[in-house]
Amino acid sequence: MTLRLCCAWIFILLLPGLSDGGKLLVLPMDGSHWLSMRPLVEKLSERGHEVVVIVPEVSWQMRVAEAYTVKTYPVSYTLEDLNSGFSEYIAAHLKDLPFPLNTITIYNGSLHVFQLLFTQCKNLFSNKELLQYVNQSSFDALLTDPVFMCGPVLAQYFSLPHLFFMRGFPCNLHYEAPQCPSPLSYIPRLFTFNSDQMTFLQRVENALIYLLERRYCNGFYGTAVKFASEILQRDVSLIDLVDSASIWLLRYDFVFEYVRPVMPNMVFIGGINCAERKPLSKEFEAIVNASGEHGIVVFSLGSMVSEIPIKKAKEIADALGTVPQTVLWRYTGQVPPNLPKNVKLVKWLPQNDLLAHPKTRAFITHGGSHGIYEGICNAVPMVLMPLFADQMDNAKRVESRGAGLTLNILEMTTKDISTALQTVINDKKYKENIKRLSDLHLDRPIHPMDLAVHWVEFVMRHKGAPHLRPAAHDLNWIQYHSLDVFAFLLVVALLSLFISLKCCLFCCRRCFSKKGRTRKPTKSKSH
Amino acid sequence: MTLRLCCAWIFILLLPGLSDGGKLLVLPMDGSHWLSMRPLVEKLSERGHEVVVIVPEVSWQMRVAEAYTVKTYPVSYTLEDLNSGFSEYIAAHLKDLPFPLNTITIYNGSLHVFQLLFTQCKNLFSNKELLQYVNQSSFDALLTDPVFMCGPVLAQYFSLPHLFFMRGFPCNLHYEAPQCPSPLSYIPRLFTFNSDQMTFLQRVENALIYLLERRYCNGFYGTAVKFASEILQRDVSLIDLVDSASIWLLRYDFVFEYVRPVMPNMVFIGGINCAERKPLSKEFEAIVNASGEHGIVVFSLGSMVSEIPIKKAKEIADALGTVPQTVLWRYTGQVPPNLPKNVKLVKWLPQNDLLAHPKTRAFITHGGSHGIYEGICNAVPMVLMPLFADQMDNAKRVESRGAGLTLNILEMTTKDISTALQTVINDKKYKENIKRLSDLHLDRPIHPMDLAVHWVEFVMRHKGAPHLRPAAHDLNWIQYHSLDVFAFLLVVALLSLFISLKCCLFCCRRCFSKKGRTRKPTKSKSH
Repeated sequence: MTLRLCCAWIFILLLPGLSDGGKLLVLPMDGSHWLSMRPLVEKLSERGHEVVVIVPEVSWQMRVAEAYTVKTYPVSYTLEDLNSGFSEYIAAHLKDLPFPLNTITIYNGSLHVFQLLFTQCKNLFSNKELLQYVNQSSFDALLTDPVFMCGPVLAQYFSLPHLFFMRGFPCNLHYEAPQCPSPLSYIPRLFTFNSDQMTFLQRVENALIYLLERRYCNGFYGTAVKFASEILQRDVSLIDLVDSASIWLLRYDFVFEYVRPVMPNMVFIGGINCAERKPLSKEFEAIVNASGEHGIVVFSLGSMVSEIPIKKAKEIADALGTVPQTVLWRYTGQVPPNLPKNVKLVKWLPQNDLLAHPKTRAFITHGGSHGIYEGICNAVPMVLMPLFADQMDNAKRVESRGAGLTLNILEMTTKDISTALQTVINDKKYKENIKRLSDLHLDRPIHPMDLAVHWVEFVMRHKGAPHLRPAAHDLNWIQYHSLDVFAFLLVVALLSLFISLKCCLFCCRRCFSKKGRTRKPTKSKSH
Repeated sequence: MTLRLCCAWIFILLLPGLSDGGKLLVLPMDGSHWLSMRPLVEKLSERGHEVVVIVPEVSWQMRVAEAYTVKTYPVSYTLEDLNSGFSEYIAAHLKDLPFPLNTITIYNGSLHVFQLLFTQCKNLFSNKELLQYVNQSSFDALLTDPVFMCGPVLAQYFSLPHLFFMRGFPCNLHYEAPQCPSPLSYIPRLFTFNSDQMTFLQRVENALIYLLERRYCNGFYGTAVKFASEILQRDVSLIDLVDSASIWLLRYDFVFEYVRPVMPNMVFIGGINCAERKPLSKEFEAIVNASGEHGIVVFSLGSMVSEIPIKKAKEIADALGTVPQTVLWRYTGQVPPNLPKNVKLVKWLPQNDLLAHPKTRAFITHGGSHGIYEGICNAVPMVLMPLFADQMDNAKRVESRGAGLTLNILEMTTKDISTALQTVINDKKYKENIKRLSDLHLDRPIHPMDLAVHWVEFVMRHKGAPHLRPAAHDLNWIQYHSLDVFAFLLVVALLSLFISLKCCLFCCRRCFSKKGRTRKPTKSKSH
């Protein structure tokens, strides 16, 4: 009897899991992007969903895992191609060229990376077996990082309800596509490095970037748009490709981002990557404990950049020697000959766990959003050395909050680095400001991970979220801005004015002509 | 030893409650508005906060309660004045006058209610004892329904961080004040009764209302703005009065509201008033059970309107007799002589519990937002008879979702009512649509009550939420719309064009004059 009762209970407990479990397709992006998406994918898998992740055979970060099913497909490039493409891209940012040569070099480097990574998509769509598998698998939804556009093409090809998980597109696409207004007067465009408090000239710059940015984005995404038009057998524009996401899971939080209008289908999950602090390994624990009262400084340029030109490394090494803290530097390049005693070079470091350690005094970072959120979560003031993409804009945001100092990696001297590091460590206001940001960021009604899980499952359950799609999608540019309405009202107003004037003139003429007629006979009489 | 351990545990358990407990001042609004705010106030009190609610001595709904402290103040009007003011307001909506007389009558009725209810505020500020109490009490925050503007004046007078809890202001103030863009092309203005899919002429109407609406709002709020300027000893505008709320707790949900841009300091708590279903009293249970297979229809025109002119009541009674369902009608007026057997008149009904009953087939409502959310939460299709304020707009929203039918209370005939009621009961698509809305509405990551509690406590803990205030507040109208920037760019472009043209002309002239000079000598030579 007890056994039967137990069995019945187990069955009841299992039932909701089975009936609720859906089928989710995931098309992630490589590199650091995957690092924050992976825990979400694992969590969804844990919750009983059948999660299938499509990854290219050649990749930096994406590996076959136990937690979810991985489907790989062969690609037409090697890991060396990938590495050299990325190295060229980084090198373009480290070349100290004059304007406009620097911009052109960086643009070409970026274009190469965009095209190289979009090759994945072409390879994916030429893999008939994989396409057939997706077609036959009846997935409930697709979760994708769309920055290289393969996810949106796949979603539209299979008409799958889809969610975007990302930090943002270039050219404000992540606001333009969901029809979210972005007033140019206080929302800085990407790559302007302005804050939300702009001078007149900065606002002019912002407007100019706005007028020009679509051109560079058409360059980045030209291949993707052409390929999508072929695959989907209709003419698609860049906006068409990305405007049908049900939900935008954006790694944003307004302690870090500038406050701005948003749309109801945007879900803000900034800080989703801040993991619970885990105990340090014995090796790191020993280093941290040995640092004494001064504590440590954590230094990493992100998961993608672990070495820099030796000249820069020497300058940095000199600067690091000027602080009493022990510096843990993730660095795999040529060891600088002037490496001071307080600097420990490591090939990898448990960044979040170190930042969470009470002995950590500062964080030297490239300004990637993952690192910055870990800095905010753990309330560690930052020295930012932005390298590429959105890093300079991120760094400016931290600086504008008074929680860090930004250095120009091309121009910074040993003294600049040393001064910045000492300032964020010793000037209490940096610690106070980052503590305030941290308190605000962590004081939330629901954890970003739970929020992301909820919305992925929501889209799976309801096959999308069409009730969150604004009617603005059905209007053209003229209609959206009510230009036709105001033109009509202007015409009506002018016409009314014209008719009123005409009436007045007519009345006046009648009056004068009457007077004229009255006078004439008088005259003739007198005559 | 065990006792000491117990005591220690009790102390530890109590400590967070004591240390977290804050002091909250509440200035609510009377009538149905208070019905959805009260549970939040009770919840906050339950959570250990010292909650003080300021209410006028004369009020419809607000009573002294045990759950929180109530401070009353005498007012210069009686309950009869209040009732007669509101009756006149309702009567103005039920008079079948031609345009523009109907609009003028309704406007005057509204103006009278606004001025009568703002008298409360004058009475409050003339009560020195109460002001002194507030001044000395060091409240952490003020929670207020600001629709009659007393809350905002009080918040600014005592520089208290404050939250607004509301359904919305007239004239789009709840979007304009927090600097939220509202494109006229797909966001219908209040009182236009349009949906988010507008024809060209509806868009023209929307634009005209936009151009005119501030005038009527200046009428409604003129007294409040003048009084605020006197009290605060500086010139304040209508926007100044309401633009400094830390958080806007808006009773909105996008299954009901049209999707539109929002701001990060807006928190959407639509459906907060949907309570858990409680068992029916024996009296109601008996009526519902006796209804047989046809079930029941719930009919209420809201907490503020329980009687209507007898002519209308007769027409309605005739219509209700045409359906096989038992109709529970909340009605206190003169009993219509033609009342059919299937209609039970009651002075009060447990609306949410009845709507939650599986035997309920339809809900006849005036279209107040509370009732509509109860209809959505419990998936009951609706027949809407809007009377005043936002009710017609609410009704149109439900109708546009295919979840109900709207009747014009002035023009509806017995046949119209009967047809509408039979349609929403018998046409399955109404039940399907309201079920879909209900499923979407209830599938949320956090309950609206918990969300509201979190944000009230957030503002109390952090003394506001300045990190959610957009920089747009620091810009004037010209700057916000970048008119200065585009004018500058236009001047630069025109100047460049002019200079280029001048250069071209200069070059041409040089060319021609050279030719001329070359020719001349030739000519003279030939000559």
